[in-house]
Amino acid sequence: MKELLSEIKYDANGLVPAIVQDAETNEVLMMAYMNAESLRLTIESGETWFWSRSRSELWHKGATSGNIQGVVEIRVDCDADTLLVLVEPAGPACHMGERSCFYRNI
Amino acid sequence: MKELLSEIKYDANGLVPAIVQDAETNEVLMMAYMNAESLRLTIESGETWFWSRSRSELWHKGATSGNIQGVVEIRVDCDADTLLVLVEPAGPACHMGERSCFYRNI
Repeated sequence: MKELLSEIKYDANGLVPAIVQDAETNEVLMMAYMNAESLRLTIESGETWFWSRSRSELWHKGATSGNIQGVVEIRVDCDADTLLVLVEPAGPACHMGERSCFYRNI
Repeated sequence: MKELLSEIKYDANGLVPAIVQDAETNEVLMMAYMNAESLRLTIESGETWFWSRSRSELWHKGATSGNIQGVVEIRVDCDADTLLVLVEPAGPACHMGERSCFYRNI
C-alpha cells in the first residue's frame, strides 16, 4: 500500500482527481479532488475527505449534511494520476439533493 | 442540449475531465480530458475523442488499438465541470491490456 501511495502523481496544485462510485450499485456519484492530506485522512478515518478548490480547505464529505461516504476500496489508475473511491453513501452525494451529481444528460 | 453544452466549465487549459463508464456493467473504465473540439467530435462521431495532455493532440480512443468506445450517453455534473461518458467498449480501455485502468488497489 505504501508503495502505491508514493507513486500517486499529484498535479501542479498538489491535487489528484477522485471519482466516487457507489460500491453496491456502481453508480458514479461525484468527482472531487484530494491532496495528500485528504487522502491520508480518508484512509485513516474510512470516510471521504477532499480538498475544496473553491474554499481552499479540507472538506470532510457529509460533515455538514450528514451524508458521509464510508470507504470500501480505493483504486489507482494505470498512470497513477486518478483515484477511484468505492463507497457506501449515507445519503445523496450531490448538494442539489440528487443521489449522483451526474443527473443531467447532454 | 446546446444550452448544457454552453454551460460546461473548462479549466485554465481548456479541458474538462471525462469519466468513462461501461454502459452495461457500470464499471469505471478510465478518466481522460476533453477540450471543446474533442467533445464536439465525440458527439458528432458517436465515439470517444479526448485531448492527450502528454502528446498535446486530439486523440481518437481506439484509433490505433481498435478498442474504440461507442458513446451511449453523456452526462454533466452539477457544477458542469466534469463529464460522465457511458460507452460500449470494443475492447480493453487500458493501454496495459486491462479492461479498466483502475485495476490496482491501495
